[in-house]
Amino acid sequence: MSAIKDLTAFQRQTEALAQVMGRLGWDQETMMPAGAAEQRGEEMAALETVLHARRTDPRLSEWLATAEPGDEAQAAALRLIRRSYERNSKVPADLAAQIVRTTSRAHHIWVEARAKDDVAAFLPILQEVLTLRQREAEALAKGGDLYDALLDDYEPGMTGVALQAMFAELRPRLVALRERVAESDVAPQPPTGTSSKPEQLALSEEIAAVFGYDRTRGRIDEAVHPFSSGSGADVRITTRVDEGDPLGCLYSTIHEVGHATYEQNIAPGFALTPLGQGVSMGVHESQSRIYENQLGRSRAFTSWLYGRMVDRFGPLNVDDEDAFHATINQVHPGFIRTEADEVHYNLHILMRFDLERALLTGDLAVGDLEAAWNDRFAADFGVAVDRPSNGVLQDVHWSAGLIGYFPTYTLGNVYAGCLHAALRRDLPGLDDQMSRGDLAPALAWLKEHLQRHGGLREPRATIEHATGGEVSAAPLLDYLDGKFGAIYKV
Amino acid sequence: MSAIKDLTAFQRQTEALAQVMGRLGWDQETMMPAGAAEQRGEEMAALETVLHARRTDPRLSEWLATAEPGDEAQAAALRLIRRSYERNSKVPADLAAQIVRTTSRAHHIWVEARAKDDVAAFLPILQEVLTLRQREAEALAKGGDLYDALLDDYEPGMTGVALQAMFAELRPRLVALRERVAESDVAPQPPTGTSSKPEQLALSEEIAAVFGYDRTRGRIDEAVHPFSSGSGADVRITTRVDEGDPLGCLYSTIHEVGHATYEQNIAPGFALTPLGQGVSMGVHESQSRIYENQLGRSRAFTSWLYGRMVDRFGPLNVDDEDAFHATINQVHPGFIRTEADEVHYNLHILMRFDLERALLTGDLAVGDLEAAWNDRFAADFGVAVDRPSNGVLQDVHWSAGLIGYFPTYTLGNVYAGCLHAALRRDLPGLDDQMSRGDLAPALAWLKEHLQRHGGLREPRATIEHATGGEVSAAPLLDYLDGKFGAIYKV
Repeated sequence: MSAIKDLTAFQRQTEALAQVMGRLGWDQETMMPAGAAEQRGEEMAALETVLHARRTDPRLSEWLATAEPGDEAQAAALRLIRRSYERNSKVPADLAAQIVRTTSRAHHIWVEARAKDDVAAFLPILQEVLTLRQREAEALAKGGDLYDALLDDYEPGMTGVALQAMFAELRPRLVALRERVAESDVAPQPPTGTSSKPEQLALSEEIAAVFGYDRTRGRIDEAVHPFSSGSGADVRITTRVDEGDPLGCLYSTIHEVGHATYEQNIAPGFALTPLGQGVSMGVHESQSRIYENQLGRSRAFTSWLYGRMVDRFGPLNVDDEDAFHATINQVHPGFIRTEADEVHYNLHILMRFDLERALLTGDLAVGDLEAAWNDRFAADFGVAVDRPSNGVLQDVHWSAGLIGYFPTYTLGNVYAGCLHAALRRDLPGLDDQMSRGDLAPALAWLKEHLQRHGGLREPRATIEHATGGEVSAAPLLDYLDGKFGAIYKV
Repeated sequence: MSAIKDLTAFQRQTEALAQVMGRLGWDQETMMPAGAAEQRGEEMAALETVLHARRTDPRLSEWLATAEPGDEAQAAALRLIRRSYERNSKVPADLAAQIVRTTSRAHHIWVEARAKDDVAAFLPILQEVLTLRQREAEALAKGGDLYDALLDDYEPGMTGVALQAMFAELRPRLVALRERVAESDVAPQPPTGTSSKPEQLALSEEIAAVFGYDRTRGRIDEAVHPFSSGSGADVRITTRVDEGDPLGCLYSTIHEVGHATYEQNIAPGFALTPLGQGVSMGVHESQSRIYENQLGRSRAFTSWLYGRMVDRFGPLNVDDEDAFHATINQVHPGFIRTEADEVHYNLHILMRFDLERALLTGDLAVGDLEAAWNDRFAADFGVAVDRPSNGVLQDVHWSAGLIGYFPTYTLGNVYAGCLHAALRRDLPGLDDQMSRGDLAPALAWLKEHLQRHGGLREPRATIEHATGGEVSAAPLLDYLDGKFGAIYKV
């Protein structure tokens, strides 16, 4: 009895300190004065040292050996603590520290290389980062699959082989859909016009509330790259404003609200325990994407939104609700992943998954990465990359050593497809509700079936518990074919 | 050699974590959503547990036993680490935890009691807090003076007896000055008019820069009770705005800029070491007060400020620069310490010092506190307290267990008096400079003689090093007599 009590109390402090780390990250991106960057690095490194020592504290091993869980939640918490302890204990401290130092250096080099479109300047540090992550993967995998060892940090239980199979199903149908849309005569009016920052922020705040975001336990600020941060009673989001694009701020906000309300809706009893956060990156992304896309870009919801925007901003430069819906869902084969529409988005990810997996296993040399990227892009997008900042240098992930992270974006979309199908099955009045701006029933369904459970089940089991069925790429593909087939009449 | 290296590295992390605690405090008062308060309490408690464990880490004792300082700064750092280790090791962990819990409870009871003017509701918890602090003082003093043991946390090296002697010199001359002013026929025009929040904040930002505040390593936000927070490269201040009072925000900002620039001007090499912060509460207050009063409320500076305010806001409702100076320095025997002018301020502190010292030693019973307060107030201020929220319930300190803190405010004023005399001795052109809005020579003098040295010397030695003379109350009294004698023609 004492072991579970001591372990629980110790873990609660660790979780609280992890929240503090989240606050520092938030502050760094929103409030911190520029001159404090170096000192902040030391503050975060000191806290990381404390966290690492606690996650590998020898007492954890003793407690775990004898702790008897009192219920399902405690059993799940013990499972997560054990996994964290074992993972953290496998990586030598000096390797972990070297990864932190090297990726910090790599970030600056990447920023400069991207600004100068200079791939050659980036490749040596990328090789260093890759080598370190390979060593880490070897330490974690202990003879098993290297990619799976890294992936496990972001999506526990998922494997590269399973992703490969899922992505093999997605790719031909996505490419086919992209080609049909490209040949369509339908050309939605592009969104134009401007709206001021205060107007955009006010609309975003209103819509954040419509999507269930509780600002008494959160706040909205501006940041260059929007994110959601924190768990439990303090979940903050950021957004960005482009006065020439009246929709970017709004949909960025809805996306982050999906992440944030997932955290806010976890059972309060799970707060400051290992169950008190979203269970994986993939499941997290399923929430941000279903909020943003399946709900936020639906014909029903955008018809209501159209009215709200006309009320706020006066007549928009689109003919009617149908045109507004088409504008919001415009398909365009751009170079940049973060700006991609629903049809192209996963094609970006599938490419990165194949490339990073080949880099990690050594099947692709760092020196051949750019050519491999450009070949694949031409094949899947039908356009040639014009410059490295629109190609291989566009994303921050690899410089940060985040290998295994990219596929969770598409996994999130696949999960969102499954959840959306189950939601429509259970809520036949969904479109009626959304067309009145009433998202409450859909949000209640997501909270009840998925969000409140936090880390109670493994990621895939979390989705399957919510939907009552197997995870499959088919619902996402059917949804995309149906939606964009209708808009583009293909 | 290894001991000093290991100790320095360990201490650097502790200092970085202490900075993190400061950030959490800042966030709590400026940014944190209301619903996060309870969780934040757990986050700060977890970090406090980490900090306490590090401050009493047994390795400190081993390192301290063999560490050989390489220079004066290292020797000073070792002295401060040893003092911290010894103090923290003397207080049993369960007593420290009980003080945290009880003062947290006491805070809420005090807030409610003050709102209801209900002294009886506050006294039981005050007795609890007092008893706990008495036990702590006994643990620290080991037979020595109880008040000195607590005072040492805020003003190392200072004693109650020394303060008593200094305050005995202050009290009769302050009371005499107050009485002369009260009988004067001069009645400065009260500040009236309004200026909007953005206007006040813009002026405050301009004047903060005039007083040397570096916003690339800091920022200014609003808070209910203004404060300065952080050390090194991240020193933030807060201010408050009352649209009916065009001067409150400004002088609150100047006060906090005094605290903040002290931190910003400490030698960069001292950052994240025990020398990298202001050396004591008293020395800190000397900086905030000399900025706010001896410089900021001087005839020379206010003549320049008058012009700036007329430029910004148009004609003010005062006749000329003299009237503006008198308005800014209006003397009024109010009940509230934080609103007090320079003449009355220290009379508030002297009273609290005598009362809290008597409470701690047991010479004054908690049940007799209100009567003792009211008697003393009538004697020193010539006015009867009208209600407890204007009397014994006005300040947060005692509910927080901060016994020994109050006298550092007056000590700061005394130090400021000494520094001001030395500054005038060394800078004969000071008034000319200030009347052009040029504070750079005065600020450079303070940085060179005092601020850059951080915690290198003990507090009193820090002041005496800066001034080249003994600490004495006389310069402050002479300054007050001269300034208010001139304004009130007494």
